[in-house]
Amino acid sequence: MNAELIAVGTELLLGQIVNTNARYLSEKLAELGINVYFHTVAGDNRDRLLNTLAIASARVDLVITTGGLGPTGDDLTKETLAEYLDLPLEIIPDELERVTALFVKRGLPWVENNAKQAAFPKGAYILKNDRGTAPGLALKLNGKAYILLPGPPREMEYMFYTYAIPWLQENLLAPDSAGLHSKVLKFLGITESKLAESLEDLLAAQQEVTLAPLAKTGEIHLRLTTKAVNRQEFQLKIQPALAEIKKRVGQYLVAEDEESVSQALGRLLLEHGLTVSTAESCTGGLLSATLTAAPGASAYYLGSVIAYSNEVKNKTLAIPQEILQSKGAVSSEVASLLASNIRKLTGSSIGLGITGVAGPDGGTPDKPVGLVYIALNSATVNWSLGFNFIGDRHTIRLRSVNTALNLLRKYIREGHGH
Amino acid sequence: MNAELIAVGTELLLGQIVNTNARYLSEKLAELGINVYFHTVAGDNRDRLLNTLAIASARVDLVITTGGLGPTGDDLTKETLAEYLDLPLEIIPDELERVTALFVKRGLPWVENNAKQAAFPKGAYILKNDRGTAPGLALKLNGKAYILLPGPPREMEYMFYTYAIPWLQENLLAPDSAGLHSKVLKFLGITESKLAESLEDLLAAQQEVTLAPLAKTGEIHLRLTTKAVNRQEFQLKIQPALAEIKKRVGQYLVAEDEESVSQALGRLLLEHGLTVSTAESCTGGLLSATLTAAPGASAYYLGSVIAYSNEVKNKTLAIPQEILQSKGAVSSEVASLLASNIRKLTGSSIGLGITGVAGPDGGTPDKPVGLVYIALNSATVNWSLGFNFIGDRHTIRLRSVNTALNLLRKYIREGHGH
Repeated sequence: MNAELIAVGTELLLGQIVNTNARYLSEKLAELGINVYFHTVAGDNRDRLLNTLAIASARVDLVITTGGLGPTGDDLTKETLAEYLDLPLEIIPDELERVTALFVKRGLPWVENNAKQAAFPKGAYILKNDRGTAPGLALKLNGKAYILLPGPPREMEYMFYTYAIPWLQENLLAPDSAGLHSKVLKFLGITESKLAESLEDLLAAQQEVTLAPLAKTGEIHLRLTTKAVNRQEFQLKIQPALAEIKKRVGQYLVAEDEESVSQALGRLLLEHGLTVSTAESCTGGLLSATLTAAPGASAYYLGSVIAYSNEVKNKTLAIPQEILQSKGAVSSEVASLLASNIRKLTGSSIGLGITGVAGPDGGTPDKPVGLVYIALNSATVNWSLGFNFIGDRHTIRLRSVNTALNLLRKYIREGHGH
Repeated sequence: MNAELIAVGTELLLGQIVNTNARYLSEKLAELGINVYFHTVAGDNRDRLLNTLAIASARVDLVITTGGLGPTGDDLTKETLAEYLDLPLEIIPDELERVTALFVKRGLPWVENNAKQAAFPKGAYILKNDRGTAPGLALKLNGKAYILLPGPPREMEYMFYTYAIPWLQENLLAPDSAGLHSKVLKFLGITESKLAESLEDLLAAQQEVTLAPLAKTGEIHLRLTTKAVNRQEFQLKIQPALAEIKKRVGQYLVAEDEESVSQALGRLLLEHGLTVSTAESCTGGLLSATLTAAPGASAYYLGSVIAYSNEVKNKTLAIPQEILQSKGAVSSEVASLLASNIRKLTGSSIGLGITGVAGPDGGTPDKPVGLVYIALNSATVNWSLGFNFIGDRHTIRLRSVNTALNLLRKYIREGHGH
């Protein structure tokens, strides 16, 4: 089985956005054992979209489109596919009701265009959109299969994973077809080159199981990939490599696969019966927002004070004026006090403190942009470390957050109970 | 003049990397006044690449490929183009010397395959590679033009900018050719369909200036695009449409072009001499992190309390236990108190309060997932509003933040001073 991915959207052809949907779908289709032979991007233009659909229908078995399903006149993927396949569009009453209800629930005014989202080519199977309004669809005709997905990645990915894959499995795939499977290991506290060095022989000798390291801002990912009929066979095949990797760099491993670093840390905090709170200056709530991005965070996260002004640092977190003046707001001492005082204020077992210069302004020769102090305080430890991060404001804030998360990982792993 | 971009590489079709080259080239070609009609990705496969070249040659004037120019057996873009155009490949002595010298300089062993990089289809213009080994090429035949570029973005971008653009200007473009220019308007507090309805006649009648709405989570972008020789002519051409749009939906317009919504709000706060602080529950610091993402935020942002637990709400923000119990932590009253008490605590002119159920757990029949109360408190107003947001945890948090930012925009625009 082979496939072509068609992304519809003039914004892609103007270079305003990158076609990340093609990457996601390619990876998932590879896992299903479907060969992706082509990606195509076409604009919001009926003639060129018709041309694209005709070419794809002639050269592959499965055509998947992303984008062009919304309510505006620009959105014409569904209409153009119906035209190409010569199928009438029919309003599905249940869908019309659902779309209408969504608007009522949100208290939004109803405009006639919205009804478009409840119309489908005759015979189409509706793919629900649990993360937005425009539903997708799947349909088989003349030995070819078509799947239409929305453009926004969050909606598209959820719809594909939850509804389109089961449809593919039921309608197109042999039950035991082998596909490419991957496992992603997520590391904190180790650089990409250090990781590559530690695994040098494995990276050089890779055969059946391929290993691909990838650096994110502060996180390092390592992807293990191999062909397998199912997840179980895959687990068995990667076992030797996985065991060796964990033996060498397991102490930096935080999360695997779909689990995010903040989810993994939340799980560890819960397992150890620990709670956490943060006091942030230059990160402005980003550490707190990252920790609370994980569902169920209220079980281990208590609260934070974002102390941007010195007055708030003094008044809310009781940082003495004389220390703010003698050491400066950006200092190891203040980071330390932020961590210990937020811990006392909230009654958490761990307090994290961050203060620094995120830039682009506010740097001095003594305290340049990128200087950040990060502290962790508990009943047993009192760590405060200085860092010189390189990059723009966004990168410096992100690195600060990831470094604080790494301190938290280290503490749960090593410091807790010592 | 219209173009198709062909990226060659199986790693793209496996979802291992994203086609960022297409974004870069699309943007640059739009500025040169060349319409990009299609992007295509094909694998390292002779037959499918031939098919792709034939389709592109039939439907556009200019074909630009990226990737497949290296020394390995997988690299076959140049060979396949020569085959498709029926041109012999000729070794260019100067290039052979250059490639050989590069290998000597780097102390790498010479393998016969490397000579491949010095071979070009007869009549091709060589595009130098100043950042790598594989050169590119440009050539015109039968009224079509072809440009072959390497895959690594660093090499590709430099080569395109430095050598391919001059070749295009000399060989394909009229001297005073107009390029596509764009302006982006960013709205808060209006839905995509409401915006489309308000501008229905403009969207339907668009001719010289095209209008494209795009929904981000909570923000709506409207892109105005037209051809112009330079930025000045562009401003003049969009003036009538821009004035009409501002007349109709200007009250929702927050930012333009590169400026982010949080930067625009920061600018407005500064202009009005206002300061802000936030007290957040379900958004966990995301509102604060968004406000402080703007450089220079310390001039108008004072601080926040993230009160996840009721104890922190009570202790740090003085929310009375009896209100937390009688009304519940997720209530209009608590949102209101969060906003007013953080304002008092920090001494800011505006306090924003958010409390809600972000899910996926924690919902009840009375207070379901997605119920969020958002309040704004100042010396003159005390707004507290309830919302039912739809989506997953991430979306609910993002919508809450954008709704709070919209309240802030509304207050600065309307409420301030009343």
